Amino acid sequence: MHAAPRASTILTVTLNFALDLTYGVDRVAWHGVNRIASVAERAGGKGVNVARVLQALGHRALVAGLVGGRTGEAAREELRRAGLRDVLVAIGGQSRRTVAVVDTDSGDATGFWEPGPVVTSAEWRTFIGAYRQHLRDADAVVLSGSLPGGVPTDAYRILCELAAAEGVPTVLDADGDALRLGLDGRPTLVKPNADELARVTHNADPVVGAQALRAAGATAVVVTRGADGLLAVAPEGSWIATPPERIAGNPTGAGDAAVAALVAGIVTGTGWPERLADAAALSAAAVAAPLAGSFDANAYCRCLPEIDVRPMDPPPS
Amino acid sequence: MHAAPRASTILTVTLNFALDLTYGVDRVAWHGVNRIASVAERAGGKGVNVARVLQALGHRALVAGLVGGRTGEAAREELRRAGLRDVLVAIGGQSRRTVAVVDTDSGDATGFWEPGPVVTSAEWRTFIGAYRQHLRDADAVVLSGSLPGGVPTDAYRILCELAAAEGVPTVLDADGDALRLGLDGRPTLVKPNADELARVTHNADPVVGAQALRAAGATAVVVTRGADGLLAVAPEGSWIATPPERIAGNPTGAGDAAVAALVAGIVTGTGWPERLADAAALSAAAVAAPLAGSFDANAYCRCLPEIDVRPMDPPPS
Repeated sequence: MHAAPRASTILTVTLNFALDLTYGVDRVAWHGVNRIASVAERAGGKGVNVARVLQALGHRALVAGLVGGRTGEAAREELRRAGLRDVLVAIGGQSRRTVAVVDTDSGDATGFWEPGPVVTSAEWRTFIGAYRQHLRDADAVVLSGSLPGGVPTDAYRILCELAAAEGVPTVLDADGDALRLGLDGRPTLVKPNADELARVTHNADPVVGAQALRAAGATAVVVTRGADGLLAVAPEGSWIATPPERIAGNPTGAGDAAVAALVAGIVTGTGWPERLADAAALSAAAVAAPLAGSFDANAYCRCLPEIDVRPMDPPPS
Repeated sequence: MHAAPRASTILTVTLNFALDLTYGVDRVAWHGVNRIASVAERAGGKGVNVARVLQALGHRALVAGLVGGRTGEAAREELRRAGLRDVLVAIGGQSRRTVAVVDTDSGDATGFWEPGPVVTSAEWRTFIGAYRQHLRDADAVVLSGSLPGGVPTDAYRILCELAAAEGVPTVLDADGDALRLGLDGRPTLVKPNADELARVTHNADPVVGAQALRAAGATAVVVTRGADGLLAVAPEGSWIATPPERIAGNPTGAGDAAVAALVAGIVTGTGWPERLADAAALSAAAVAAPLAGSFDANAYCRCLPEIDVRPMDPPPS
């Protein structure tokens, strides 16, 4: 008898788990009072968005992180309604809210992100214990988003090292110090957007920036550049993936969709060109969908064959 | 033996009870992502703001209305921490949130108001029963703000009539149909702002508008006109109350502070000129305070003696 093949599990870590509120407003009156036409209330944080996209793609995602207070419970309840499994660790503070105001007239979005709770060192240790448990069943780990107060600034270094010790590949999507210090943990893949990359490398050239992140510890780097598509610098080569058209919509969550495609590519062993085409198409399809963590399946299918992926000359090292 | 004199109780009705979130942002980036510097979370709705001001003035306020869901429980908990008594009736829907984004750089505020829950007719009947109970101990009733879905459009007419049947004076502060239909209940005092008055009377002249509201059922009308102060048309006469200076700050809650002063004046039997000076000064002092429902006591004391109250010629009838 053969053991049934185990479906792969991707652990997505969202330390700053959130309740995402999306407010649709017919035409935003800045400096006035806006009566909201529609309210969507969902679990959020970049790792949750990645898990939703992974689930939609048929992968098994497990949502890890920290959760607290009434907002946290509301978000967790929505996760369950969405059929997502979570192994969130309870904290005493209250999970943050994020408010996205989407002008249904122009499609423009403005975000307001609460800072999030302050985590105690005991809570952080409890999380680390749970994380080590779940690494045993994980085929890859996604580390996404900002760090709540109280969590060590080099949290992502620690989480990358623990994963590496178990042979589990890591994808890191963070900003500022969380990204910079995370590189010391030698993540398998780092996915900054162009602004995040320029901020952390002090260099506006994405090829030079990606090279710098590799020199600092990342095995591969994929830079998301909005409508300009993706740029990848990896041990196997360098590529640019360009979507055919600029898609109008809500860019929140486009990077998370790219991360989902990239980690799925790692787990399934897909080659880089295919992986990048997938990431670029999913990213564009996420822009076409109104809520972060979802994507427009039609836009995805329409976009995928039209993504132009071409190798770049190797960057100067 | 004499019975101790009973302290007067003012029942403030907030049918669309809310969780008010105030986000301080250093400099708002419209169409971008704003990381919030400070979050204040309080119970809200205009009647709650009125109750807070009444309490600060030493009056006994009792918060009535409808409450539901996690947001409602969070708001109710804050009420209790603030020492406010409530007789809120539980509903199955979730109380709305309001989000006020205050640019700490410019002081400008932008509001986003969720629509609120849908109330069942059984819940509405339960509320009416509770309201009739509490009328027995009330010296005045304040009816403030928007109506949640499911509540009859002429809710304020019904509530005014029930109060009148018990000999309890009513102050109505509403907009649109809620105001227009409420007038049929013959409220003791109606307090629109200039925009609300113009909308409901289709006339931009506040004196003509106030006269029209009286003709439609209101005994007295006080129009709040922002930095231009107040205008009152009552059976006893007509007055204009003007503050000396324009105060910079957050205008949310200024009208509620005026309502608190006006209902306090009704309960204590203060004459109109004094009542209006008080309302104008409290209104200005509320603008100087960062959160709705609070006022700057220094600004109040500084402003009060400088309010210019003068009789108007009786409006043409």
